[in-house]
Amino acid sequence: MRNIAIQLAYDGTDFVGSQYQRTGRSVQAVLEQAWTRLTGEDQRWTFAGRTDAGVHAHGQVANVRTTTTHSLPTIQRALNALLPRDVAVRDVWEAEPEFHARFSAVRREYRYTILHEPWPVPLLRRTSWQITGALDVAAMQAAATLLLGEHDFATFGVVDAGPTVRVCTEAMITPELRDGYRTLVVALGANGFLRHMVRAIVGTLVEVGQRKRSVSDFGAVLASRDRRKAGPTAPPHGLSLVAVIYGGRLPQASGC
Amino acid sequence: MRNIAIQLAYDGTDFVGSQYQRTGRSVQAVLEQAWTRLTGEDQRWTFAGRTDAGVHAHGQVANVRTTTTHSLPTIQRALNALLPRDVAVRDVWEAEPEFHARFSAVRREYRYTILHEPWPVPLLRRTSWQITGALDVAAMQAAATLLLGEHDFATFGVVDAGPTVRVCTEAMITPELRDGYRTLVVALGANGFLRHMVRAIVGTLVEVGQRKRSVSDFGAVLASRDRRKAGPTAPPHGLSLVAVIYGGRLPQASGC
Repeated sequence: MRNIAIQLAYDGTDFVGSQYQRTGRSVQAVLEQAWTRLTGEDQRWTFAGRTDAGVHAHGQVANVRTTTTHSLPTIQRALNALLPRDVAVRDVWEAEPEFHARFSAVRREYRYTILHEPWPVPLLRRTSWQITGALDVAAMQAAATLLLGEHDFATFGVVDAGPTVRVCTEAMITPELRDGYRTLVVALGANGFLRHMVRAIVGTLVEVGQRKRSVSDFGAVLASRDRRKAGPTAPPHGLSLVAVIYGGRLPQASGC
Repeated sequence: MRNIAIQLAYDGTDFVGSQYQRTGRSVQAVLEQAWTRLTGEDQRWTFAGRTDAGVHAHGQVANVRTTTTHSLPTIQRALNALLPRDVAVRDVWEAEPEFHARFSAVRREYRYTILHEPWPVPLLRRTSWQITGALDVAAMQAAATLLLGEHDFATFGVVDAGPTVRVCTEAMITPELRDGYRTLVVALGANGFLRHMVRAIVGTLVEVGQRKRSVSDFGAVLASRDRRKAGPTAPPHGLSLVAVIYGGRLPQASGC
């Protein structure tokens, strides 16, 4: 039996999220429908990371076990022809038998885009969160570095169950012009993320930027492991899953 | 009577174009509705440049004569509150009595984004035209420079009536990474553009990139003033009006 893996990009605007849900249009459901049309197989796909409604992806990874004899180029071409325009297959490869998109991942990378302009920007409204007032970017950057390393991130997670310790290997805030508009891109990488973790971190970092919290308060909140001490959860549409990294082959989106 | 000018940004996806039309949703119509709600006045707005259905703007300019006593900040805030999410007012100013958004403009700048990737990119589908095969970018750049200066652009225009000579002051093609995806940005500036001119130029430049035409053929086609010799008209959604320049004050979008 083959184990096929793919790298997916999607516009999360019109999805209820990556994972299959009883009602609504999920990325998994449209992928599985396309897969069934291509192969006749009724297999479940496994996703590397769960993304919520409105969250985008440039580098989501998924895999499926299959007996199809289609070549990799045929699979990519056919899936891209069958999928709706808000999902695309960036890459396809033959994975090792034991490869599991979720459990084999060693790192995930997210980008959150804050639009820092006084007036709305129509063409960026689906992919950024607008903050209109002043932001102390240096303070936000200082606070972000406190995330680096191994921490119990219970403060920033919806705790379903299980451990809340993660290792954060990237925490950067970079001012970038986008179509000439000012944005702040928050880049976070870790071996795993709790549910809503990136968005809760971004919401709290914005409070640091607004001087509602100090950098040391941000550190104390992280250390408290108390969800009620975090700031508001930033809205989903500013967030993109940009890469999932595996021990061997690295299927990685080339940017944010 | 005051003469109020504004700089507008819009996502052209869901508009029939900038100008009022008998049926369909135009930028002018939604602006005039918002203006009537704010001021009670039933005035027509004048636009600097006509954009077709699907074409975007970061720096469209429009003006209106009015007796409203609202301050400029109030006008901007109120219009942004009243306008739908796909239109925004970037700037508002008090124009000279003789200022006319269209006739006072001395230069217009457009950007056309070509997505140069083998597979679709969901998040760029509304703002770029995808070309999948090889492109000779150097040849495209060489052809583009032939546009510079004063020419009769009848080859690239839908000739309604009137003169077809324009002065092209900017013609650049720049490879840019966007979210890590390869794009080519075609930047064109001129004192004026014929209808469909940017899109016809881009469609013909792409044929040069695909080696269906040589650079010298591009020059001959430009000189022919024969519309039938141009390449296909590129689709509207890759195009944005980024700036309109006036002799005095320069309301200019800061990027593409």
